[in-house]
Parts: sequence; structure tokens; C-alpha cells
Amino acid sequence: MSTAIRLLGIDPGLNATGWGLIDQAGTRLSLVGCGVIRAPARAPMAERLRVIHDAIEALIAQHQPHEAAVEDQFVHVNPGSALKLGQARAAAMLAPARAGLSVAEYAPRLVKKSVVGTGAAEKAQVAAMISVLLPGAKAEADAADALAVAICHAHHRTSHTRAAS
Amino acid sequence: MSTAIRLLGIDPGLNATGWGLIDQAGTRLSLVGCGVIRAPARAPMAERLRVIHDAIEALIAQHQPHEAAVEDQFVHVNPGSALKLGQARAAAMLAPARAGLSVAEYAPRLVKKSVVGTGAAEKAQVAAMISVLLPGAKAEADAADALAVAICHAHHRTSHTRAAS
Repeated sequence: MSTAIRLLGIDPGLNATGWGLIDQAGTRLSLVGCGVIRAPARAPMAERLRVIHDAIEALIAQHQPHEAAVEDQFVHVNPGSALKLGQARAAAMLAPARAGLSVAEYAPRLVKKSVVGTGAAEKAQVAAMISVLLPGAKAEADAADALAVAICHAHHRTSHTRAAS
Repeated sequence: MSTAIRLLGIDPGLNATGWGLIDQAGTRLSLVGCGVIRAPARAPMAERLRVIHDAIEALIAQHQPHEAAVEDQFVHVNPGSALKLGQARAAAMLAPARAGLSVAEYAPRLVKKSVVGTGAAEKAQVAAMISVLLPGAKAEADAADALAVAICHAHHRTSHTRAAS
């Protein structure tokens, strides 16, 4: 495993932030783990952001990924929802940035295309393909999306980020 | 000074984040310091957020405020701008939250009303009143807004947060 690169994918959200860790050794991808971080919905905003940040910080300390990636959400929603999403996104991105990891950003269509083959794929198709591409992954929707971001990064990382030394 | 409460006000922005520190002793307010954090505009998003977070973290370590407050921006702009503002806001809020400080949020109208007396005040009026309320403060616009947030918190804090022990 010494030649594998470990990648952390994140699908940020204020209520549910998905995460997925994979190892990439050459063209072979394998599942390390995945899950969903749920911040207490009734807590003050700063506390919810702290929970998201600290959970990802703990994942990084435990699993020692080399690089991170998040979805660069294109926002169709109203400005108030976009503000909330931006806050969750920053909380999620800050943990790897503070740990010295590069944080790549990918458009949702590219993430879907990397996993399903088309940028117009449905959420369920993404989850179904994740279980094919990463045998053993039984991920709920947000975690499957995070694994899709990690796979997208595995396919595109050489053009976006320097290789880990 | 042992009975003074030190308050940190933050006016978050991706390009310029204003900060202002004041001491509150009874009804008396005094300036501790203020300034503007500028994150490198051409850096990756995660790095810009890290610069904002780490600058506020350093301010907290140096000045040891008891409580923090940010403007709860009401966003009239497009979703893309709201997403960016949300990210800057989270980077700014996370530093005090991680340091164990409460982080109060105030509507822009309440901030302006607390300083100028009307929620419809112009930015220049806020800056002018800051130099009256806090003699010695020579703050550029973003720093003046942050001091206004701190003053607003000084006026309203008992109803929003527990007193520091």
C-alpha cells in the first residue's frame, strides 16, 4: 500500500455532509471508508460549522489522506440557501486546508460523468455505480456522492493537483 | 480592566474581512484595535479561507476576547455571490467557535441602528459614528463595520449570550 494515494471526497451540506475515502494505486481504486456527518440542526450556526469542521479534521487525523476534493456546487437555489451551503462548504474545506492538503473542486456534472458516464445522471444512478466501482461500499446517498467526488478526483487529479510526494 | 468584557466584531468578506476589538466596562466602550484581513485573490478557495480563519485565530490568541459577533448578512445578491459570502463567513466564524467563544449574529439593520440610530444608515455614516463612539479609531470601511458589529453586540449581548465568567 506504500504506493497508493489516499483521497478524501466531501459532499458538503449544513444538515448532512457526506465523506468518502478511497485508495488509488495505479488505475485500481479501493474503498477505505465513508459516512455522513450530521451537525445538530438546532445549534447556533457557528457550533454547527465547528461540528462539521472538527469531524473532518478527525477523519484526516485518523486516515491520513494525501489530497482532498469537494463538489463545486453550481447553485440554482435562492441566495439564502446558497449562503448556508457556502458556510457548510467552507467548514468542510478548511479542515483539509489547515492540514496542508490540496483541495480540488469539481463541477457536479463532471463528478457524475466520472462515475456514471453522463453528467445528467440521477442521484440513484450515482449510488448504484458506486457499489459497482467500489465493491463493499454500502453508502447512503450523501456518502455515495462524496465517494463519487473522490473517484472524480482520482480520474482528474494529475491535471488539477501535484502528486503527493 | 479585570471587569471589562472584550468583544470581537467581524465583517466577513472573501476579499476583505474587517475585524474590530473593543472592551466593555459597564456602559463604557473603548477601542482595543481594528483592521482588515485580505486573502490572496488568486489563491485556491480553500487557501483563501484558511488565510481568513488563521488570521482571526491569531487575533484571538493575541487579544483574548471573551465573545464574538458577526453580521448576519441578508443577501440581496445572486446565488453565486451568496455562496462566496457564506464561505468567507464560515471561515470567520469557525475561528472563535473553535476557541470556545460564543458567536452572536446580528442583522445589518440592527448593527446600523446600534451605531447611527437608524437601520437605513449609509456606510460613511457608520464610519463617522465609529470615530465618535470610539475615540482614536481610524478605521477603513470594513474595519469600521466590524467595530459597529462589536458595538451592536455590546448593546445586545445580555439577551443573546451568557455573560463571560
